[in-house]
Amino acid sequence: MALAAGDKVGGERARRGRPPAQSSEDTFDRILAASRRCFSRNGYDRTVIADIAREAGVTPRALYHYVASKRDLFAAAADAALARFGAEVAARVLVHRDARSRLHAYIDVFRVLHREDPSLVAFVSLSALESRWNPDLPDPLTDVVEQLQQANRWLVDEAIANGELASGIDAPGAAALLEVFGAGLTLLAGGDRDQDYPAMLDVMERLLDGQLFASGPS
Amino acid sequence: MALAAGDKVGGERARRGRPPAQSSEDTFDRILAASRRCFSRNGYDRTVIADIAREAGVTPRALYHYVASKRDLFAAAADAALARFGAEVAARVLVHRDARSRLHAYIDVFRVLHREDPSLVAFVSLSALESRWNPDLPDPLTDVVEQLQQANRWLVDEAIANGELASGIDAPGAAALLEVFGAGLTLLAGGDRDQDYPAMLDVMERLLDGQLFASGPS
Repeated sequence: MALAAGDKVGGERARRGRPPAQSSEDTFDRILAASRRCFSRNGYDRTVIADIAREAGVTPRALYHYVASKRDLFAAAADAALARFGAEVAARVLVHRDARSRLHAYIDVFRVLHREDPSLVAFVSLSALESRWNPDLPDPLTDVVEQLQQANRWLVDEAIANGELASGIDAPGAAALLEVFGAGLTLLAGGDRDQDYPAMLDVMERLLDGQLFASGPS
Repeated sequence: MALAAGDKVGGERARRGRPPAQSSEDTFDRILAASRRCFSRNGYDRTVIADIAREAGVTPRALYHYVASKRDLFAAAADAALARFGAEVAARVLVHRDARSRLHAYIDVFRVLHREDPSLVAFVSLSALESRWNPDLPDPLTDVVEQLQQANRWLVDEAIANGELASGIDAPGAAALLEVFGAGLTLLAGGDRDQDYPAMLDVMERLLDGQLFASGPS
């Protein structure tokens, strides 16, 4: 009964047995969210389909209506999280014309996604680590990571071209700093300090505006 | 011939067969560095003792003079990396009396350790992730992570008590931001952007001093 990879079913057969008020897409979204939480908590190797089904509140059999294997489920969860992240960056960051507004908007991407579901934020870096370590996993992530690196570099180059950055700022170094922020912001999401996440983003915005300290450097 | 866990041998039997100019400690340090690189590159589960021995330039048999198992080798490598990190923080950060100097010194910790060996920096977060995912691994890391969280909170509380931070800065949020920086800084070490690491730290120092942008926020 297992379907081919990527063959997400919305048809009559897959809907059978589930409550009529709940669409197939809702169920699959719930399965993806459960996957993110289980993979993040226990790692890919120690997560089994039964754990994810239990977390999602479906039977393992129902889960196999959507994906053929744990590997495909991981790939679907990673694809969905990275696509969502990329779409938020495009919608929020790229609409601004100056570096400072873009960086504040980048912080807003994390704010919005974290409010929606911390595991969505956490899975961006965790899935990249897993696919680095696990040769069996598909690597849709390399492309996205490269796109994010290019976006960071573009943001920095534009800022320098527009005279927004102070003189002497190293462009590859500044782009790497954006990666450090991105990695740290995703890694901290969903952990034991999660209640401080929104306040942490506020402090980051203060730092960005040079308003963290009561006075300038002596 | 395998020794009991933690039973690091410096005696006659263990030295037999190695070049006389090379001390047992040098060899064990080299084995620990090779462990960090292999575990970081391939993850704990997909690393075997033979990989580490090859990377360290010793025979698997020689490696078993020092540790009884892959698990013990991971624990020893994590212990050593975290102890080194903690010692640098104590020596560099705690000697300063103001928050700004302490934060610059914290960045210096990463600079110094990265210059010595990027895998040392990378292994701080990777080992914490592995021990979270792998119930078989010892968890010496939880204590260290808690100590670092407490150190971050102490640094922020002191800064607020001394009137160094601008009004309205949330203390738990600021401490969480230090964790974000720590996680990002360790995660980026040893990767494909490693040549930009020192320049990235320079940009971070500029940001800390409110000197990233050519002008203040409008």
